[in-house]
Amino acid sequence: MKALFLNCTLKGDETRSHTEGLIRDMIPHLDRLGVDSEIVRVVDYKVAFGVTEDEGAGDEWPVIFEKVKAAEIVVIGTPLWLGEKSSVATQVIERLYGGSGLKNEKGQAIYYNKVGGVVVTGNEDGAKHACASILYGLSHIGFTVPPNVDTYWVGEAGPGASYLDAGRDNAFTKSHAKTMAYNLYHFAKMLKKTPIPAEGNTMR
Amino acid sequence: MKALFLNCTLKGDETRSHTEGLIRDMIPHLDRLGVDSEIVRVVDYKVAFGVTEDEGAGDEWPVIFEKVKAAEIVVIGTPLWLGEKSSVATQVIERLYGGSGLKNEKGQAIYYNKVGGVVVTGNEDGAKHACASILYGLSHIGFTVPPNVDTYWVGEAGPGASYLDAGRDNAFTKSHAKTMAYNLYHFAKMLKKTPIPAEGNTMR
Amino acid sequence: MKALFLNCTLKGDETRSHTEGLIRDMIPHLDRLGVDSEIVRVVDYKVAFGVTEDEGAGDEWPVIFEKVKAAEIVVIGTPLWLGEKSSVATQVIERLYGGSGLKNEKGQAIYYNKVGGVVVTGNEDGAKHACASILYGLSHIGFTVPPNVDTYWVGEAGPGASYLDAGRDNAFTKSHAKTMAYNLYHFAKMLKKTPIPAEGNTMR
Amino acid sequence: MKALFLNCTLKGDETRSHTEGLIRDMIPHLDRLGVDSEIVRVVDYKVAFGVTEDEGAGDEWPVIFEKVKAAEIVVIGTPLWLGEKSSVATQVIERLYGGSGLKNEKGQAIYYNKVGGVVVTGNEDGAKHACASILYGLSHIGFTVPPNVDTYWVGEAGPGASYLDAGRDNAFTKSHAKTMAYNLYHFAKMLKKTPIPAEGNTMR
Repeated sequence: MKALFLNCTLKGDETRSHTEGLIRDMIPHLDRLGVDSEIVRVVDYKVAFGVTEDEGAGDEWPVIFEKVKAAEIVVIGTPLWLGEKSSVATQVIERLYGGSGLKNEKGQAIYYNKVGGVVVTGNEDGAKHACASILYGLSHIGFTVPPNVDTYWVGEAGPGASYLDAGRDNAFTKSHAKTMAYNLYHFAKMLKKTPIPAEGNTMR
Repeated sequence: MKALFLNCTLKGDETRSHTEGLIRDMIPHLDRLGVDSEIVRVVDYKVAFGVTEDEGAGDEWPVIFEKVKAAEIVVIGTPLWLGEKSSVATQVIERLYGGSGLKNEKGQAIYYNKVGGVVVTGNEDGAKHACASILYGLSHIGFTVPPNVDTYWVGEAGPGASYLDAGRDNAFTKSHAKTMAYNLYHFAKMLKKTPIPAEGNTMR
Repeated sequence: MKALFLNCTLKGDETRSHTEGLIRDMIPHLDRLGVDSEIVRVVDYKVAFGVTEDEGAGDEWPVIFEKVKAAEIVVIGTPLWLGEKSSVATQVIERLYGGSGLKNEKGQAIYYNKVGGVVVTGNEDGAKHACASILYGLSHIGFTVPPNVDTYWVGEAGPGASYLDAGRDNAFTKSHAKTMAYNLYHFAKMLKKTPIPAEGNTMR
Repeated sequence: MKALFLNCTLKGDETRSHTEGLIRDMIPHLDRLGVDSEIVRVVDYKVAFGVTEDEGAGDEWPVIFEKVKAAEIVVIGTPLWLGEKSSVATQVIERLYGGSGLKNEKGQAIYYNKVGGVVVTGNEDGAKHACASILYGLSHIGFTVPPNVDTYWVGEAGPGASYLDAGRDNAFTKSHAKTMAYNLYHFAKMLKKTPIPAEGNTMR
């Protein structure tokens, strides 16, 4: 079973990402459950703006999209700026949406039987709003959203330290990370064994 | 199998509700699948403001809450005002949240193995935002959100006719209502047969 | 000059409100500027659900609405539940919207030349989302939104202490409270001296 | 007086943009008021991801940022995808935020005395949510938000035609475009004559 984490930090791979930090603190739970995890730092790819699955010359989204197709679990990780998910996370949702017209062999959207989740870090405020937006986007295009698959850390109001420096001991965040890992796994396993029947949900 | 629709219109039961109209257009799909549907117009109950499962003297939320506990499927229906879900819908989320500390026999939140969805009508704009907020609230407290369980109708920008007068023939809304009914049913059935394992997700 | 604070806590007046605490920490700034401040705890009034300025028998919104009409500055204060403004705050926006068709003597919406702001407290996360929703609602019906009129306090992710117990020394929140008070005052004074010209913005 | 429209379409300049269409339908009102309008299609610049005012080598944001500094009126225009503002609009807010620590000669944020607004087009649903997010972002970093500076067009729920093909005759949108143009002008003029006093709002 494969879990793909799309880290939507604004920072390139030479830079420490707090969102990646929280993702890395979740992965050991998935390891124990036998799930293979991969992290993609989206900003390291040349992803074109657009709402198709392939925007043509120079667009590297198709490389990421192949990983999405191969994964049973897809998690969007995002930092917060002005209380909102990052522009990169917004772009990832746009590009995933661009593939929402593709069908699986039963005629359902290709995201059917995939499970989605979200990880958010910020130095303060905005996590639940980002989670709501991202989980809704995933659900609307065909992902299943198990209970409690939103894990986040934010600090007290105002400027301050970020996750790796101040949040790793937060009991709430740690507990959510664990529950999220288990519920992603439980549902991915359930949907592998019992895929969503192709009744009432196939595409025209 | 029971589906409970909490209609969060601002209007009392003597008044036509467009949100109820869309709910009623979805119910025949559930009927065919053998699901018993009940609609509760929340504003007809004296629901106290608060965030517990019972606010005491005069609070009629406990009557509704018993119906929530008995249902496998819970759908929030809401109109839109200024692009937002209604105050009654906000209150329902607050009260459902008030029960989120209660456990089932396995130690999970009592909303585990229940399936949630959302129905929205407005004369214009705001549906997706209301859906995101409501589905996130449900997911965060333990409901499962299957794919495509948001059904809405809104008209063109600006004042205009509402669902029962202008929206019943909308192919997009009709198709979503059908898919939503089926996916609520598929997941409720799946979770009845294979409840979410109590591993990694029980309450402290 | 009058400032009206509509405290949208879910708790009745016998109970300590953290949102009122933050409001009370802002008022000394307004006192110094010669502004008279009044706090209304909305839940202590029997406000009917609806979207008119007067829902008839038993509706106590008209009492509050008279205070709104008499104030140059209107601030919505709200707690956070599940990352959202309270149901009472949602109801207040609905009722203010219900008066948005009324005109001043120049034919503009009656909220023209009034200045709006927002105060939010929560034990964690959701403030900016609540601020965005409330300020947009106010702006859309005719209020002016000066820069930096959103003051909030939230704690670190997860359960924890609330404003009066943990937030009163937060430098960011204190600084925002001061700036907000001054900017509300500056704009109310400016609009008193130079009302918005009735060109291009009168109601049909 | 200068108005800068930042068109955050995902499409390059060879392609028809419905958002630009609505912007162009607003500009004649500003022309009549003697305001010079400029439209920048942000995607035609190589804007780096980040939250500073200059991300260094190859970043073309500084070109746009100079235009922002020179304008009294700044309007963000955005399409909608999955009910959200575009990734480009999110990026523009991030980059504007990156300049929020810069001061004017009085020690206020450089966005003080600038007036902000928003234009949204989509084939359906999401406009008010995008407006709320964008206007809040602008207000939080120092822009003034006059009443009624949100103009949008969206069609009925579901796939369908876009603004230039179906929305140009919408009376609500036309009326909002006019009011928005006038209120942006009225406030820009007022703030030119009476800048916001540097009391209580200077940066530390």
